[in-house]
Amino acid sequence: MSNGTIYGVGVGPGDPDLISLKAYNIIKKAKCIAYFKKKEKNGIAYGIIKQYLKKNIFEIAMPYPITTEISFLSLEYKKVLSNFYDDCCKRILSEINQNSDVIILCEGDPFFYGSFMHIHTRLYNKTKIIVVPGITGMSAAWTATNLPITWGDDILTVIMGTMEKKEIIKRIQNSDALVFMKIGKHFQKIRQILKELSLFDCAYLVENASMLNEKVRKLKEVQETSLPYFSIIIIHGNGRRP
Amino acid sequence: MSNGTIYGVGVGPGDPDLISLKAYNIIKKAKCIAYFKKKEKNGIAYGIIKQYLKKNIFEIAMPYPITTEISFLSLEYKKVLSNFYDDCCKRILSEINQNSDVIILCEGDPFFYGSFMHIHTRLYNKTKIIVVPGITGMSAAWTATNLPITWGDDILTVIMGTMEKKEIIKRIQNSDALVFMKIGKHFQKIRQILKELSLFDCAYLVENASMLNEKVRKLKEVQETSLPYFSIIIIHGNGRRP
Repeated sequence: MSNGTIYGVGVGPGDPDLISLKAYNIIKKAKCIAYFKKKEKNGIAYGIIKQYLKKNIFEIAMPYPITTEISFLSLEYKKVLSNFYDDCCKRILSEINQNSDVIILCEGDPFFYGSFMHIHTRLYNKTKIIVVPGITGMSAAWTATNLPITWGDDILTVIMGTMEKKEIIKRIQNSDALVFMKIGKHFQKIRQILKELSLFDCAYLVENASMLNEKVRKLKEVQETSLPYFSIIIIHGNGRRP
Repeated sequence: MSNGTIYGVGVGPGDPDLISLKAYNIIKKAKCIAYFKKKEKNGIAYGIIKQYLKKNIFEIAMPYPITTEISFLSLEYKKVLSNFYDDCCKRILSEINQNSDVIILCEGDPFFYGSFMHIHTRLYNKTKIIVVPGITGMSAAWTATNLPITWGDDILTVIMGTMEKKEIIKRIQNSDALVFMKIGKHFQKIRQILKELSLFDCAYLVENASMLNEKVRKLKEVQETSLPYFSIIIIHGNGRRP
């Protein structure tokens, strides 16, 4: 075991006020932070909490070599990403080995569809890791629709748009409430599926939930075919209401 | 429209440090709070944030007339609970009509399987309601297992133990990651289902996630048949990992 500790800290869905007190207290004392980002863009998680950081801390920016919305089935994709995560771990461990704690910033909740888990699975037996849960993007999205997502004993199913059409159809048929994430270029496919299953008219699209540019619409009012990264489709459960 | 505002505030899973800055700032200024509780017990959400409250504020305690773990199919259950929520709304509106804001405390996230939504659906067209999302109990539960819940394009399904056995089986067969909530007296049924579907050995039981009495075990190590209210069973997804 090394001497520093890794903190995987959920910074919530976007609104800087939606981070937890625990995350806030860790971040404001941080001497070294690490965060994922798209190439040539600012880090989203970093942007959320930048205002809380001390001056002159050490930053480990980890730019993805490729988009995360391409097929997970490609071998090339797996290899490139695997090498990338290995490299991130080396950079993080280098700090840990100098007795520095490293705060890894995670959008939403670290263990819920995040890149952090690829670091976690590589390093959990090499150094101490503390994970701080966060408010998920989907919580912010259903809050933005101003309607409850689940009632009574509704079932909630969370689905990635990256899946094959027939797989998605099979897996949502027995659910009540639905959340679609990773929509991006799969938007047309998901629209089609929801139309086929008569779920289209009641669906909502939430873009950038809890952020300054949050936008909420019924899906049927959406004309454009390209959506921002933080787009979530919500279909509310209907439950048994007393 | 009345003049006060209702705030439905998620106070997170139990650890007082896991409430959001936004919730904290609303709660510490509150003049009137309302919260659900079991009869003759302290309110859970109230207990989480009690330390943040000003002195001498007005409190609306709302004790459930019956347990929430009995069948949702019973007409008597619906009637008793419906009258109860109507009565809660009257008490809340009485404050709102005197220009006082009312902060309704919600365990976890207000719109995710909570009693708050029964207030929301009765009052959203009578007064302004602002909802603040929170960290869910399930996020705290999978964080407590120290393993990611979902990878890549894993599907997550959230299921209430209150459902019929055959319904549960039908609905979980096409999922990757699973979360069971409202387990209580349905524990033996769920154990049996997980054994039948060969999911028993990999399941975790998390009691009181993020609270001082948090307890995490593999399900197969659990001997007792009665569990605390905040018990969540977690089955992690396995995803496609680069």
